[in-house]
Amino acid sequence: MRWRYTLHVVGAILVSMGLSMLFALGFSLYYNDAGVEPLVASISVAVVFGAGLFYMFRDLDAPAMNHREGMAIVALGWIAAGIVGALPFWFAGTFPTFTDCVFESVSGFTTTGASVLTDIESVPRGLLMWRSLTHWLGGMGIIVLSLAILPFLGVGGMQLYKAEVPGPVPDKLKPRIKDTAMLLWKVYVFFTVVEVLLLLIGGMDLFESLCHTFGTMATGGFSTRNTSIAAYDSVYFDVVITVFMLIAGVNFSLHYQLLRGRPLVMWRDAEFRFFMGVFAVFTLVCAFSVWGRNYDSFFESLRYAAFQVASIVTTTGYATADYELWAPLPQAMLLLLMFLGGCAGSTGGGIKCMRILLLLKHTYKELYRLIHPRAVTSVKLGGKTVPPEVMNSITGFFLLFLGLFIVSSFGIAAMGMDVVTSFASVVACIGNIGPGLGTVGPTENYAHFPLLGKWLLVFCMLLGRLEIYTVIILFIPEFWRK
Amino acid sequence: MRWRYTLHVVGAILVSMGLSMLFALGFSLYYNDAGVEPLVASISVAVVFGAGLFYMFRDLDAPAMNHREGMAIVALGWIAAGIVGALPFWFAGTFPTFTDCVFESVSGFTTTGASVLTDIESVPRGLLMWRSLTHWLGGMGIIVLSLAILPFLGVGGMQLYKAEVPGPVPDKLKPRIKDTAMLLWKVYVFFTVVEVLLLLIGGMDLFESLCHTFGTMATGGFSTRNTSIAAYDSVYFDVVITVFMLIAGVNFSLHYQLLRGRPLVMWRDAEFRFFMGVFAVFTLVCAFSVWGRNYDSFFESLRYAAFQVASIVTTTGYATADYELWAPLPQAMLLLLMFLGGCAGSTGGGIKCMRILLLLKHTYKELYRLIHPRAVTSVKLGGKTVPPEVMNSITGFFLLFLGLFIVSSFGIAAMGMDVVTSFASVVACIGNIGPGLGTVGPTENYAHFPLLGKWLLVFCMLLGRLEIYTVIILFIPEFWRK
Repeated sequence: MRWRYTLHVVGAILVSMGLSMLFALGFSLYYNDAGVEPLVASISVAVVFGAGLFYMFRDLDAPAMNHREGMAIVALGWIAAGIVGALPFWFAGTFPTFTDCVFESVSGFTTTGASVLTDIESVPRGLLMWRSLTHWLGGMGIIVLSLAILPFLGVGGMQLYKAEVPGPVPDKLKPRIKDTAMLLWKVYVFFTVVEVLLLLIGGMDLFESLCHTFGTMATGGFSTRNTSIAAYDSVYFDVVITVFMLIAGVNFSLHYQLLRGRPLVMWRDAEFRFFMGVFAVFTLVCAFSVWGRNYDSFFESLRYAAFQVASIVTTTGYATADYELWAPLPQAMLLLLMFLGGCAGSTGGGIKCMRILLLLKHTYKELYRLIHPRAVTSVKLGGKTVPPEVMNSITGFFLLFLGLFIVSSFGIAAMGMDVVTSFASVVACIGNIGPGLGTVGPTENYAHFPLLGKWLLVFCMLLGRLEIYTVIILFIPEFWRK
Repeated sequence: MRWRYTLHVVGAILVSMGLSMLFALGFSLYYNDAGVEPLVASISVAVVFGAGLFYMFRDLDAPAMNHREGMAIVALGWIAAGIVGALPFWFAGTFPTFTDCVFESVSGFTTTGASVLTDIESVPRGLLMWRSLTHWLGGMGIIVLSLAILPFLGVGGMQLYKAEVPGPVPDKLKPRIKDTAMLLWKVYVFFTVVEVLLLLIGGMDLFESLCHTFGTMATGGFSTRNTSIAAYDSVYFDVVITVFMLIAGVNFSLHYQLLRGRPLVMWRDAEFRFFMGVFAVFTLVCAFSVWGRNYDSFFESLRYAAFQVASIVTTTGYATADYELWAPLPQAMLLLLMFLGGCAGSTGGGIKCMRILLLLKHTYKELYRLIHPRAVTSVKLGGKTVPPEVMNSITGFFLLFLGLFIVSSFGIAAMGMDVVTSFASVVACIGNIGPGLGTVGPTENYAHFPLLGKWLLVFCMLLGRLEIYTVIILFIPEFWRK
């Protein structure tokens, strides 16, 4: 583990964060709001501190980073971004405590969207822009992490993509991290531009179009309105955002291949079919169960069911309805969807469709073996056999996810939150969704949580976003030894 | 699959059930209560119908049963016992519907202890004796099933016992099912007699001592009092029942070896250490969290915490306190314990300590592999390597358990029960515990559930009790083909 090299890269990340704040500063200057001074101060701190780290630990002959350094950079980079991202809120006095500032910033960078803001609309627009921008930057990070870094580290079954994505064929994604990142970012930027244009056409102003697009494409969920997307009460916006949430929940390497002119690539992907199947089935069941109970027409039921299901399954967290007023079945189904999450290689969180699909296949295989004890069986995905060590890695990830979910829920419960809120707040944060159930439902926020509870949830957001192992490994002394 | 042979054995089971009712009839005659006629009628039906099956399908040259027949006999035997066991309640008019009678009877035979009786104390004592006896008979069945039948079928990792329990050394358990069963039943009867004597010494009458002992040793939970064990408000009874619940939650082959004069056998068993460790830690945390909040003295807190934790972790379901009035943390912890359950080879339900222990070891192994990618690792239990196919079987079982838990909870939620009650009632039934949370807490019962919900829970009780695979396999058409 080369500490110097790790801090060098973290320094570069901090400088980039500082420079990104210039975008938000532009809006503060345009609207002439109270965000100018806090943003300028934050930019100065981020750039000076980041550049300091960058030059102090410059290592001109540094070779390519190894596995351990990769993980340390990812984890420390996200933590550093979370802290520096909190500065504008802190300098502006948006929140009473620094804990709240870090909660909001980490929630942004992890694309969770859990908020401690009680009155969003009273915050200067420049700061709201920064808040939404943290989502978008976090989303960029996730795409690189999940498609270019994690596959090579073999974290929780992500090595499946090692074989699939890069390869010698020219039309496949290029193998090197930098090239892969650039290609995928182009896709990310492309969809971002399209969604902004569609929201502008619908009548949102540029500021709100950008903020909501950032929240959608990163499957984040921060809105500029107190009542989230429900504030617009527009079928057009509901449809556009539902579609783009789903786009953001799909593996970006599939998007890349589709845009390169391979129209059938989606349908050939087992994870995509599973993801869309779950969306379709859950939407229909929810629609039928709210029809006549919460909404009069079936079209309206379908509209609200599709939005809420897409929002939860992609782990975005936007809301157009308070699902806590729905019947028990759709509530229970949405709670389950919080564990599922989007596709691997998307900006979505959760356990990921690919893993759940393989776990289902594993379960079926074990049932089959009971009837055919002598049959030699293996789990297959897209016609290819999944190696046993990858399956072990996936079951290990699933169990670790469940274990951390349980232990963290106990932690929240120990602070006196009721049982439903304890479990729901933890899954909403570890799955990077945002809203949960109980006192953290879609119309509520996390402002009332105790200080220690907020830190625990910050930890959960980072755990979930960085595929657990990347964070856990930092706590194992052996990891730091050479 | 030889249908004739299967029905022949099921017939024998029915005759045994009928004859067992004579025991309850004795109490009805002694107390001269309204249970005499219903019991006599039920005995007649069971014996005549069972003997009919037994002789009609007699196959004098039937060889030893094969795997499929073993599973079919187990599943059909439990279902048949559940239906015949419902007859006394039906003939006596104890419940308004036959569904309720079957619910109570299956809850008894599966040692669940979930009840639809709203006023237990108004039921004739002979029928209450039969109700408790169903627990005890179910417990006998479970011991044979889990230690003599399932290991040879390789269901959900139970094959681990194939190597451990029977063997050529004379002081080990004898390999044949019949002999194994007889040895373990002796242990079961021994503890039953000791507990009855201890309860008699404490001042319970013979009827109540027997009923509560049946409920304890089978980890069932049916009581003769409306307020369960809380009715006695006695430290002595609390301690005796806590200790015997824990005894019933331990692998009976360990008890057998202990009684044969091997005092260290318990401590050498990894699952036993895990089970007792969980009991100790959860009891202490619960005690500290109710101390000062629900009870004034620490001794009192410890007394109630230990009883409730032992009752839930062993899946008994007796209550001396309403844990729904406790703080969120102990509530959440008890909810988790419902999934855990007792040791494999005990009368307890749930996922079983052995499986959870191995899943924890598997998770640790995967974390270790991330730091040492080239290390060859395997999960070990008691110094022996667990074969990968056994680990696969255990992860498969765990996932199937979770999957069925989720689907069944959705079913209950679809009938309009609230989210907490839906999830808690299903885990309380599939884990064979009895009381849950929400509207099925320790001071409530299942009488208010819709008819269809009761049948779904009956199915869950059977699923959980018969280690899932044994029931699921009946629904696979291939299983029935030759």
